[in-house]
Amino acid sequence: MKITVYRKAHFNAAHRLHEPNLTEKENEALFGKCNNPYYHGHNYELIVGVTGEVDPKTGYLIDMKVLADLIKAEVEDYMDHKNLNEQVAEFKTLNPTAEHIAYVIWNRLRVKLNTSFNLKVTLYETPRNFVEYCGE
Amino acid sequence: MKITVYRKAHFNAAHRLHEPNLTEKENEALFGKCNNPYYHGHNYELIVGVTGEVDPKTGYLIDMKVLADLIKAEVEDYMDHKNLNEQVAEFKTLNPTAEHIAYVIWNRLRVKLNTSFNLKVTLYETPRNFVEYCGE
Amino acid sequence: MKITVYRKAHFNAAHRLHEPNLTEKENEALFGKCNNPYYHGHNYELIVGVTGEVDPKTGYLIDMKVLADLIKAEVEDYMDHKNLNEQVAEFKTLNPTAEHIAYVIWNRLRVKLNTSFNLKVTLYETPRNFVEYCGE
Amino acid sequence: MKITVYRKAHFNAAHRLHEPNLTEKENEALFGKCNNPYYHGHNYELIVGVTGEVDPKTGYLIDMKVLADLIKAEVEDYMDHKNLNEQVAEFKTLNPTAEHIAYVIWNRLRVKLNTSFNLKVTLYETPRNFVEYCGE
Amino acid sequence: MKITVYRKAHFNAAHRLHEPNLTEKENEALFGKCNNPYYHGHNYELIVGVTGEVDPKTGYLIDMKVLADLIKAEVEDYMDHKNLNEQVAEFKTLNPTAEHIAYVIWNRLRVKLNTSFNLKVTLYETPRNFVEYCGE
Amino acid sequence: MKITVYRKAHFNAAHRLHEPNLTEKENEALFGKCNNPYYHGHNYELIVGVTGEVDPKTGYLIDMKVLADLIKAEVEDYMDHKNLNEQVAEFKTLNPTAEHIAYVIWNRLRVKLNTSFNLKVTLYETPRNFVEYCGE
Repeated sequence: MKITVYRKAHFNAAHRLHEPNLTEKENEALFGKCNNPYYHGHNYELIVGVTGEVDPKTGYLIDMKVLADLIKAEVEDYMDHKNLNEQVAEFKTLNPTAEHIAYVIWNRLRVKLNTSFNLKVTLYETPRNFVEYCGE
Repeated sequence: MKITVYRKAHFNAAHRLHEPNLTEKENEALFGKCNNPYYHGHNYELIVGVTGEVDPKTGYLIDMKVLADLIKAEVEDYMDHKNLNEQVAEFKTLNPTAEHIAYVIWNRLRVKLNTSFNLKVTLYETPRNFVEYCGE
Repeated sequence: MKITVYRKAHFNAAHRLHEPNLTEKENEALFGKCNNPYYHGHNYELIVGVTGEVDPKTGYLIDMKVLADLIKAEVEDYMDHKNLNEQVAEFKTLNPTAEHIAYVIWNRLRVKLNTSFNLKVTLYETPRNFVEYCGE
Repeated sequence: MKITVYRKAHFNAAHRLHEPNLTEKENEALFGKCNNPYYHGHNYELIVGVTGEVDPKTGYLIDMKVLADLIKAEVEDYMDHKNLNEQVAEFKTLNPTAEHIAYVIWNRLRVKLNTSFNLKVTLYETPRNFVEYCGE
Repeated sequence: MKITVYRKAHFNAAHRLHEPNLTEKENEALFGKCNNPYYHGHNYELIVGVTGEVDPKTGYLIDMKVLADLIKAEVEDYMDHKNLNEQVAEFKTLNPTAEHIAYVIWNRLRVKLNTSFNLKVTLYETPRNFVEYCGE
Repeated sequence: MKITVYRKAHFNAAHRLHEPNLTEKENEALFGKCNNPYYHGHNYELIVGVTGEVDPKTGYLIDMKVLADLIKAEVEDYMDHKNLNEQVAEFKTLNPTAEHIAYVIWNRLRVKLNTSFNLKVTLYETPRNFVEYCGE
């Protein structure tokens, strides 16, 4: 019996969209007000989906408390109330678009999860803009 | 033209997580406060997705009223305001985790639906925890 | 400068509507399926509103972390994953309707809050049914 | 790196469910109160999902502003505050069920999007009824 | 013990904003695309709040089922899937703005409720526009 | 006939909680991770409520488009994608707590609104924390 379990989480962070390999002019043209050098910020809403076989002994795919604690350690404690560009290692060289943040979160969780599970990450940057990444 | 139509429903129920084949100690260690012998409960939110071909005569995949009535008969009338462990036959021997409740709902609906349709069930146990089952 | 700050919280619990001073027949007639002797349950969503003067030294009415911790201690830790009728002292003799649960929560928080603040409690029993109590 | 980005939009419109090739009696039997000749209406909520490769130069799959402007031009400006049966060309001969509206929106967006992208459209007719179409 | 209980409901309807005492030109200038003679429509979300004393015998202010049935009879059955301008008596001579619809709903419910209760009506025309009326 | 109309809006901004009249140590003790000198950010959701008499000529309290444009000019264009501490004049000397942001928004809107209207501002800093200010 194959199932997907989902857990929601959230964190608040500042960022600016800025691609280090481009000039200031190109960055401003590409990212507009999202390129503001003083930063802006978001309440990021995160949904983590884990797919696999239900354990017949417990009726759980994965203990939700274990999954919630993993998300807390790898994402919330790591990114919440941070400036992504300045204070999160992965974004020193990577533009913190929603696409790239989802990619970083997926990779941080992937290495901590049993390899028998598939992993999907949905990240809301605003209630109207969101992205989904599953490692393909 | 292949499409998926979704219908939301909800029901309120009591349950405790308790695996009959394990000892009390093991149950308590595995399920913590969810193992409370006096039960706790949830507002379960359910999304039923049905995939198939649109009927060119009507422009419907399935009449939403028919689908809503089916969910009412098979899920809402059967589980709403019930104690899942004590009053729902399937959970006499099956631990009522979200995974297993989704599995039971999927099976109850599957036998009533035209075999040309695919079926997916999403069940929210809380706004932060949910599962998805599609019969694989 | 007078303002109201709000904090949301939630807890899951089982209950049955049952008025100890009435007969079984009367209880069943009054409360229907909510009187189920095996209990049912809800995800209770709680909004606590505190009104008062903003502290000019901090720009806070009350530190949200202090308010969140108070709600956790007095409501979440006290009622979450409990059977309200059987395991929460106030409902040994009080029918746990949404009205009465809001009343109990309001009283538990009131005694812990500075008397210069006004207090309002909004309690969602389901997404469609909710109550509001402000101690009048 | 393959990802899906989503953008939400909405529009308000009147419609009636009415299949031109059927008799009035058949229409009434099939569509009930949705066949009301004076029309009724909805706040349609739309989620457009675009799947493809992230541009390594920008960290974007597609500029959300470009996607939002496309949805505005092709869907919102075209359908908002309109009577779908009377004022939207595609529904002169096509019954405006949620299934068909999603199909029309998908086709309007498909021709404007780079062919390297996949496209998925989710359309909420009410908070409880919605459909998903991805062009298969 | 004074409390407010709330019940949510919803209905779908078509309307156009059109003030019968004004000319076509004035109507178009005032109401823009909301004046479309072919109508548009909304999913109206309604919250009905009733304030009064809790009945010590039951722990209820009012039985939610009674309140839900009243809203169904007076609002949902009366307005759902209707054209407000053409098929709802009150709007033959009254422009169906959100303000006026809330006013009509309040009056329809007021005459059916015990005079010891206060009544408040909140009506969402869209998720971003809503009005509140309490009979003052 | 007295009514309240509400309009929702939103903006994204960076900020840090920092009271200029206190030492770094005191700021850190008071505001914890919200005092991060590199800033963090939020999706602020705003609800503006305007109370007054409905204009019998139009059936409107205030044209929602006029209200939406006012909020856009005074709040969204002014604060969206900004660093509140560094780029919004009012917060050069005022700690940008939710309480103070609501106060600033209320004052910016108040001077532009007809004095016959009452004004209420609700500001969500996160989905769980929000404040309400009405100028008292």
